[in-house]
Amino acid sequence: MSSARYDFASDNVAGAMPEVMEAMLAANAGTASGYGTDHVSAAAADRIRALLDADAEVRFTASGTAANAFALTVLARPHEAVLAHEHAHICTDETGAPGFFGQGVGLIGLPGASGKIELAGLEAALARPEVSYNQPAAALSLTTATEYGTVYDAAHLAALIAPVKAKGYGVHLDGARLANAVAAGFDLKTVAKMGVDILVMGGTKAGSTPTEAVVFLNPDHARRLDARLKHAGQLVSKGRFLAAPWLGLLGEANDGGPWAARAAHANAMARKLAALMPFPIRHPVEANGVFVDMDEPTLERLRGEGWFVYRFLDGTARFMCSWATTPEMVEDLGAALKRIA
Amino acid sequence: MSSARYDFASDNVAGAMPEVMEAMLAANAGTASGYGTDHVSAAAADRIRALLDADAEVRFTASGTAANAFALTVLARPHEAVLAHEHAHICTDETGAPGFFGQGVGLIGLPGASGKIELAGLEAALARPEVSYNQPAAALSLTTATEYGTVYDAAHLAALIAPVKAKGYGVHLDGARLANAVAAGFDLKTVAKMGVDILVMGGTKAGSTPTEAVVFLNPDHARRLDARLKHAGQLVSKGRFLAAPWLGLLGEANDGGPWAARAAHANAMARKLAALMPFPIRHPVEANGVFVDMDEPTLERLRGEGWFVYRFLDGTARFMCSWATTPEMVEDLGAALKRIA
Amino acid sequence: MSSARYDFASDNVAGAMPEVMEAMLAANAGTASGYGTDHVSAAAADRIRALLDADAEVRFTASGTAANAFALTVLARPHEAVLAHEHAHICTDETGAPGFFGQGVGLIGLPGASGKIELAGLEAALARPEVSYNQPAAALSLTTATEYGTVYDAAHLAALIAPVKAKGYGVHLDGARLANAVAAGFDLKTVAKMGVDILVMGGTKAGSTPTEAVVFLNPDHARRLDARLKHAGQLVSKGRFLAAPWLGLLGEANDGGPWAARAAHANAMARKLAALMPFPIRHPVEANGVFVDMDEPTLERLRGEGWFVYRFLDGTARFMCSWATTPEMVEDLGAALKRIA
Amino acid sequence: MSSARYDFASDNVAGAMPEVMEAMLAANAGTASGYGTDHVSAAAADRIRALLDADAEVRFTASGTAANAFALTVLARPHEAVLAHEHAHICTDETGAPGFFGQGVGLIGLPGASGKIELAGLEAALARPEVSYNQPAAALSLTTATEYGTVYDAAHLAALIAPVKAKGYGVHLDGARLANAVAAGFDLKTVAKMGVDILVMGGTKAGSTPTEAVVFLNPDHARRLDARLKHAGQLVSKGRFLAAPWLGLLGEANDGGPWAARAAHANAMARKLAALMPFPIRHPVEANGVFVDMDEPTLERLRGEGWFVYRFLDGTARFMCSWATTPEMVEDLGAALKRIA
Repeated sequence: MSSARYDFASDNVAGAMPEVMEAMLAANAGTASGYGTDHVSAAAADRIRALLDADAEVRFTASGTAANAFALTVLARPHEAVLAHEHAHICTDETGAPGFFGQGVGLIGLPGASGKIELAGLEAALARPEVSYNQPAAALSLTTATEYGTVYDAAHLAALIAPVKAKGYGVHLDGARLANAVAAGFDLKTVAKMGVDILVMGGTKAGSTPTEAVVFLNPDHARRLDARLKHAGQLVSKGRFLAAPWLGLLGEANDGGPWAARAAHANAMARKLAALMPFPIRHPVEANGVFVDMDEPTLERLRGEGWFVYRFLDGTARFMCSWATTPEMVEDLGAALKRIA
Repeated sequence: MSSARYDFASDNVAGAMPEVMEAMLAANAGTASGYGTDHVSAAAADRIRALLDADAEVRFTASGTAANAFALTVLARPHEAVLAHEHAHICTDETGAPGFFGQGVGLIGLPGASGKIELAGLEAALARPEVSYNQPAAALSLTTATEYGTVYDAAHLAALIAPVKAKGYGVHLDGARLANAVAAGFDLKTVAKMGVDILVMGGTKAGSTPTEAVVFLNPDHARRLDARLKHAGQLVSKGRFLAAPWLGLLGEANDGGPWAARAAHANAMARKLAALMPFPIRHPVEANGVFVDMDEPTLERLRGEGWFVYRFLDGTARFMCSWATTPEMVEDLGAALKRIA
Repeated sequence: MSSARYDFASDNVAGAMPEVMEAMLAANAGTASGYGTDHVSAAAADRIRALLDADAEVRFTASGTAANAFALTVLARPHEAVLAHEHAHICTDETGAPGFFGQGVGLIGLPGASGKIELAGLEAALARPEVSYNQPAAALSLTTATEYGTVYDAAHLAALIAPVKAKGYGVHLDGARLANAVAAGFDLKTVAKMGVDILVMGGTKAGSTPTEAVVFLNPDHARRLDARLKHAGQLVSKGRFLAAPWLGLLGEANDGGPWAARAAHANAMARKLAALMPFPIRHPVEANGVFVDMDEPTLERLRGEGWFVYRFLDGTARFMCSWATTPEMVEDLGAALKRIA
Repeated sequence: MSSARYDFASDNVAGAMPEVMEAMLAANAGTASGYGTDHVSAAAADRIRALLDADAEVRFTASGTAANAFALTVLARPHEAVLAHEHAHICTDETGAPGFFGQGVGLIGLPGASGKIELAGLEAALARPEVSYNQPAAALSLTTATEYGTVYDAAHLAALIAPVKAKGYGVHLDGARLANAVAAGFDLKTVAKMGVDILVMGGTKAGSTPTEAVVFLNPDHARRLDARLKHAGQLVSKGRFLAAPWLGLLGEANDGGPWAARAAHANAMARKLAALMPFPIRHPVEANGVFVDMDEPTLERLRGEGWFVYRFLDGTARFMCSWATTPEMVEDLGAALKRIA
C-alpha cells in the first residue's frame, strides 16, 4: 500500500458530515453583519442554549486549542493555575497555549486512571496551602469523553466539582468529544446545573468543518466578551461560517441531531472494533476510542499494512473512530490486526 | 424598510463566491491528516507560491486580525515596535491584538494622505535615536489596498521599504484587500523581490469563507512555525477547510483566478458608485471603496432609507463594494443617495 | 569642563538622603523572614497607612515603571485600556511596560495643558461607544505632580475621578513625585477618599535608594497579591531593604517627615531657579521642575558649559531640582544661563 | 521562646555583610546618570567581567526570580521550552514567572539525584522528536550550587552542555548560590568557556542587599538590552544602588573577595552542622545546606524549640547557613537537635 490510511489515526482525519456542508451552503446566501453579530450566529447560539437548557453567551472559534486556552484565561489569572488531568489535552497536546493566552497561567496535573481525575488527588491539590512562590489553583478543567475514551458519570463529576465550587473556583469543561459522551449517556441538560462555567462544545471532532462552540454559562463572563475574543485573535469577520455548521450538526429537534446521532455511530464503531481486537484493551471502551497494548514491532507491522495510528501518552496504541468510520473499515482493520497479531 | 441593508457596509458582509463553496465541497472527500499537514493545504500553498513566484512557507488562519498579529510577533519582539500608518487596521481596528500576541509589542503610527505612509514621516521615525525608555522600531507594516481604498504604486513601496531594510528591519504586508490592489495594477510577483518578509494575503474580504493565507517569505521565519502557530491558537486540526477556499479563489491558471477577477469587479462597482455619487469624494477611488463627505443628518437620512454604512476614521462616510455587489445594487444606492443629498 | 554635570537633568540623579541610608543600616540588623513578610516591611506599611489615614495593602518595588505597570494590570484586563494624559510617564517613558505586564493592555492618551488631563477630553473618551474592535477603557491613570511640574488641585481631581467611578472603572495615581505635590499643598489624606484604587507612592525621586510603595486601597485587589507580584518578578527575597527607606523617608511623626520636607526644599529650589531664569517659562512652577523655551544652539551652549539637561516632550528644556539641590547649584546654573542667553 | 528564629530557614534571612553596606554608603555620594548608565554600574560590571575573565554585558536586578525569568525569555521564545532539573527554583519556587516573562514559555523538568541533572534524562529530552503540539526545547537551565546543596563538577557540566550546544540551544546558569559553589571549588573562569550564555550571579543569598548580576556572555543578546529590561520592569532609575553592593562583595583583588570568602564560611558552617547532626543526612553537604530525614512530630518539636526551618521538596528538613551564621548558632542548633532527636 503506497500511502498511509488515516482512518483510525484520529477523529479529526474525517471530513465534515453532509448536514454540515448543507448548512454552510444555506448560510452563504445574502449579506450578514460582521464579527458574529449575524443571524446565523444568533440562530446557532439559540439551538445550543436550547439543547443545554440554559441561558449562556455562545461564541464560535475555529480552533479547539484556542477555545480551551481562551476559556482558561477567563477562569484563571496569570499568577494562578488550572487543575486538570495530567494527560488532559490542555496539558499535553496544545503546545502551551494556555500559557500564551493566559500570560503564564499555570497547569497543575492531577492523576487518575483512564483519563478521569481521582477525587483524592483533586482534594489534595485544593488543600495545598497558598504560598507566594507557587501559582494557586483558580479553576478545574474537566474533559469528557476523556483522552482515553472514557466518560465520567454524573456522580463523579458532581463529586469533583463540589469542592472546587466551595473554594469559589471556576470550572471548564473541554467537550472536544462531548457528543461521544452524550452518546454514552451524558445528559447535556446537567452541564449548567452542575456548575460548569465555560463549556467548549466540540464541533470539529464530531464531524464538522472547523468550529467549536464556546459556551459561557456564568453571566459574570459576558462582559466585553467580543472585544476580548477579538484581542485574542478569536473573532472572525464572517462569523456565519463558524456558526452555520452547528445548524447542520444539531438539526431542529432539540435532541442533539446528527451531532449526537453520528457520535453514537462512532461509539458503536469503537465497540465493534473492540470486539474484533486481538490485543489487550487497556481502557473501558465508552466512547469512540480503543486503546490497546501493542509492542513496537507489531505497531510497525500494522503501519506496514498501511494503517497509521498513534502511540498514546500511556504507551498504548490508539484507534479512533469517527462519524465517517464504516463497519467495513472496522472489519478491514480487524482483519489487518489479526494478521499482525 | 424594516431592517438595515448591509450591502455597502463592508466587504465582509458578502458571503463566499461559488468557486469557494465548490472547493470546500471537493476538499471534503476522504480523510486528511491533521494540523495543516494535509494534501489540500499543500496544494493551496503551491498555488500561492506559484502566483507569487516565490518560495515561501504558507499557512492559513481563520482571522485576519490573528494573521496580522501573529506576523508582527515574528518581526518584532515585545520590547520593540512596528511602524504603520496611523489609520492602519492593526492600529485602529484590531482591539490591540498585536499587543496580545506580541506581549506588549508597540505600534508607532505614521501620517500620510489617503492611507499611504509618507516617506518623510517614516524616515523621521527611523532616525529617532534609540533610548532605553522607548520601544525601538523593528518592522514596517504596509497595507495595500489601503484603508482608504487607495493602492500604493511600486515606486512608493520601494521607497518605503529601502530604508527599513537598510536598518535590518522586517516588512509585513497586510493584504486583506490585496486582490483589489492586484486588480488595480499591483504585481504580485514583486512582493518577494521588494523585500516583504510576511504577507497576509486576504481571502475573506476577497469573497471566501474565513481564511487568510500567511506567507512567510523569509526562510529565517520557517523554524518551528507550526508549534508557534499552535501555541498561539492558530493551527486548526482540520486544516483542509482553511486551505480549500484558496483552490477555488485562485483557480488553476496561475493568473489570480476568481480571486483577482472578482476583485476587479468589486473595484469596477466602486468606480460606478463614484460616478453616481452626489457627495464630495475624499480619496482616489482605486480599489473597492468610496469615501465621501456627508454630514450626520444626511447620513441618518441614508440610514433611514435602510442602508447601513460606517462613518470612517477620517470622518467620511465609507461605501464598500465586494465581489457580490451588482450594478443594480449600485444603482439603487445611487438613487437613494440622490434622494437624500 | 571635562564631564557633564547631571545635577538638573532629573530628580533621579541625586543619591539618597541621609535619613534613608541610616534606615537601611538600622534595618540590616538581625534576621528577617523573606519575601516581604518581615518586620521592617510591616513597619513601613504601617507608617504609610497612617500617613494616608487609610487601610491598604502596601508592597514595595525597586522600579517605578514596574510599580505602575503592575498596578495597571490589576485595574485593566489585556483587552481593555487605561486612560492617561498623552504625556504621562506610562505613555511615553516606560518602554511599553504596561503592555508587557498587561499582555497588550491599551493606553488611551488624553490631552491637557501642562500635563493635566482636561475634563472634556476624558468625558469624550468615556462616552465613546464600545465596539468589539477597540479596547474599551477600564481605568484612569493620574499623575501628580505631573510630568510638567504642575500639581492638580483637589477639585480638578474630584471632577476627573467622578465620571470614571460612575462607570465602575478603577483609578491609578502615579505618585513618582507625590512628595512634591504634597509640598505644594496636596493632602495625602484625601487619596483614599477621592477613590484612588492604587497609589504608587514615589520613593526614588523623593530621595531614596530604589523603592516605590505600591498602595492597594481597594480591598478587592488584596487577594493573592504576593503570588501575583512574585509571578511578575516584583517580590524580592530580602524585602526589608525596599521597605527600610520608607522608615527614613517618613520619620515617626506622621507628618510626611523628610519625604515631604525635602520635597518642599526641592520645590523651593525650582522656584529659586525660576526667579533667575532668563528664558520664557512654559508651565507653572508648582513642584520641582522648570520648563523653558530654549532653541537648540542655546541648549548646546548650555551643554557646552557642562550642564546636561533634557529636551522634553513638548520641546521645552527641562530643569529638575531634587532634595540634593543646593542654593549654590541653582545660582551657578543661573549664572550659566545668563551667560548663554 | 516567643517568636521563631529564622537563622537556618534560608540564606536570605540574613542581612547584608558590612562590606556591602559600606559600598552602598560610598556609592551614595554625588550625582549619577540614570537607568544603569552610571559610574558605579560600570565599575561593578568591570569587576564581574574581570572575575569571569570574559567580555559580557552585565546588568543588575533586585529580584533573582526576575533575573532568571528574564534570562529565559532571551534564550527561549514563547512557543519553546527550557530544560531544567525538576526541582530547580525556576520550576518550583518562582510562581510561574518564566511563563509571565516569556508569554507561556514552557519548562521541561528533568530528573537527577540531589538536584543535579542526569545526562541520560537530558539526552532523552533532546532526542524527543519535534511535533507541532509540544513546545520544543530551546535552552538548558543549570543551577549550581543546586537546590540540594550540591555542586556540579566541571566534567558533569561539560557533559550536560555539550549536547545542548550541539543542538544550537542556549544555556542559562542560575547562580543564586554561585558563591557557595565557588567556595566548593567551582572555577568562575570556566563559565564563559563552557558555553553558558547567561549567568545569573547571585548577590542576595551571598550576603547583599537585593541585587543579582545578570551576565550576558553571548554577544547576540546585547542588542537593545536596556529597552528590553525596561519593558520588563527590570531597569531601575538609580541603578547605582543595585551595582554598588558588588563593589563590596567582590573587593578589588579579583579573587572573589568577601563574596567568595564569606560563602566559604557559610559552607564551613554547614559542614559543622552536618558533623553535629543527629538525623540522617540525605544529600552530600557540598555547599551551605544540610538536608535531613526528620518526621513531622520531630520537626514540630524543633519548631517548638523556636527554630523555624522548611520541609523541602523531597520531604527532607532543610537547614541553610549563610555568611551571618556563627559557630555559636550552629552549636545552639546542634544542642536543640540533640534534645529533640
